Amino acid sequence: MILTVTLNAALDLTYRVPRLLPQTEHRVTQALERPGGKGLNVARVLAALGHETVVTGFAGGPTGETLRRLLADAPGPLTDALLPVTGTTRRTVAVTDAATGTTTQLNETGPDITPGEWAAFTDRYVQLLRDAQAVALCGSLPPGVPVGAYAHLVRQARARHVPVLLDTSGEPLRRGIAARPDLVKPNAAELAALTGSTEPLRAAMDARRRGAHAVAASLGPDGMLAVTSDGTWRATTPRPLQGNPTGAGDSAVAGLLLARDLPWPERLTQAVALAAATVRSPTAGDFDAAAYEDLLPQVRVTAM
Amino acid sequence: MILTVTLNAALDLTYRVPRLLPQTEHRVTQALERPGGKGLNVARVLAALGHETVVTGFAGGPTGETLRRLLADAPGPLTDALLPVTGTTRRTVAVTDAATGTTTQLNETGPDITPGEWAAFTDRYVQLLRDAQAVALCGSLPPGVPVGAYAHLVRQARARHVPVLLDTSGEPLRRGIAARPDLVKPNAAELAALTGSTEPLRAAMDARRRGAHAVAASLGPDGMLAVTSDGTWRATTPRPLQGNPTGAGDSAVAGLLLARDLPWPERLTQAVALAAATVRSPTAGDFDAAAYEDLLPQVRVTAM
Repeated sequence: MILTVTLNAALDLTYRVPRLLPQTEHRVTQALERPGGKGLNVARVLAALGHETVVTGFAGGPTGETLRRLLADAPGPLTDALLPVTGTTRRTVAVTDAATGTTTQLNETGPDITPGEWAAFTDRYVQLLRDAQAVALCGSLPPGVPVGAYAHLVRQARARHVPVLLDTSGEPLRRGIAARPDLVKPNAAELAALTGSTEPLRAAMDARRRGAHAVAASLGPDGMLAVTSDGTWRATTPRPLQGNPTGAGDSAVAGLLLARDLPWPERLTQAVALAAATVRSPTAGDFDAAAYEDLLPQVRVTAM
Repeated sequence: MILTVTLNAALDLTYRVPRLLPQTEHRVTQALERPGGKGLNVARVLAALGHETVVTGFAGGPTGETLRRLLADAPGPLTDALLPVTGTTRRTVAVTDAATGTTTQLNETGPDITPGEWAAFTDRYVQLLRDAQAVALCGSLPPGVPVGAYAHLVRQARARHVPVLLDTSGEPLRRGIAARPDLVKPNAAELAALTGSTEPLRAAMDARRRGAHAVAASLGPDGMLAVTSDGTWRATTPRPLQGNPTGAGDSAVAGLLLARDLPWPERLTQAVALAAATVRSPTAGDFDAAAYEDLLPQVRVTAM
């Protein structure tokens, strides 16, 4: 199975409003609720494609209960191994403006995790690694979790020879990358914040020097750039896609995981096709299965 | 006891952000959760001032459970007589911009109430009226509740000689007022929408002609205007108040209810002082008890 870790899971709300105007009152014309946090998004894509997937991390309070109930309804072989905590799972609110098609995001911070809960989680994580063919560590850290959390989890996975992918930002990424994960998947902004360089190739090479065995950077409409020990590649769709990019990065992570035993050009093809099929989907964060099949033969991979 | 009806109760979230910028991502620096909906706000003020208060209306789903748990913690003699429903209690999100002190409001629509649930509610309402010294009907209607709901509830109260105050807007106000409530408390915008007149005195007189025995209009920093069979008065604080007006109208309703047996000038004084003490409170929707005592002798009432 593939294990995904979401330390700061969220109940994601999407509010559609006719037009978002600050300092006014809005009637929400459509409200959607779904399990969120990068690792849960990755897991839902993997499970929907039939891959045995286990999610772990924390869930607590009424929002945590709602999240777990929604997760139980997700299609495919997805197992919930979230650890109950006394704090309350955060909400995120994505306000979509129907007039402009743009999104404004509001993210709660997350629950205070106690030292005992963090210790219980690391025990659970080590147990789950036994059956894991790969593990993805995804997203932000809730208050109370040590800033070096991902570095610790990367080392635990590597000690057990489980390939580990890290997808986070800021200081947790900086520290996590130093523990030598097999792969990091930053976006352009995260890569620039890490390295100080806004030139993706230069920044990805710098990220490798910081400890990542490989770097697969998601560059939005410009596809993905991979810098690895086997070579450097750029993968793109034939033309820029129209749609909602929410969740495209998480789908790219799912693609990198499910094609983990394939050569890099094919791995990138899967990742870019899944990301593009997510942009194409009418529902934010879901991927369009037919578009995914259509797009697979269209992705161009260029060695650099 | 005083009965307040909140057909579209809400779990009110207040999100503080450093600055609200559409089309960007925000970290919520403070997230507060409280029971909401006008009738619940009115009830919390009454109970905090020691008045026996019963709340009814609908609550359902995980948000409904959270709302009821929070309500149980409210100070004072407040009894929860909300009716459980299969739908889910709505959320509202007030996004406060710390840089400008302004608020942007996002309101979910509310649960679909079935005809059976509405019938069960009207039975419950009639039972509760037996012990009620006054009843307030407050706020918007959730989907499924007939648009003439307030007209029906006004008639039931009047048939049992329970004084009834109506605080709503739009079509439910238009229909409710025709059933001859003892008092309506529109704000300036609601009054203008009802009557087509933006001149408050003219509009309030028109509202009386439409069926309300008395009209007490809340005019924000301009205080209140009452048009009654005993006379017409204007009540104001000595100077405009700085602060957050959220909930001030609901506190005014609480003041009108608790002083229901006093002459109109004293009744307006209570309403304006409570509203002003709510504007003064650092927490949106709460009133500052010390400010309330301070403000009571300062309110000026002028016969017109």
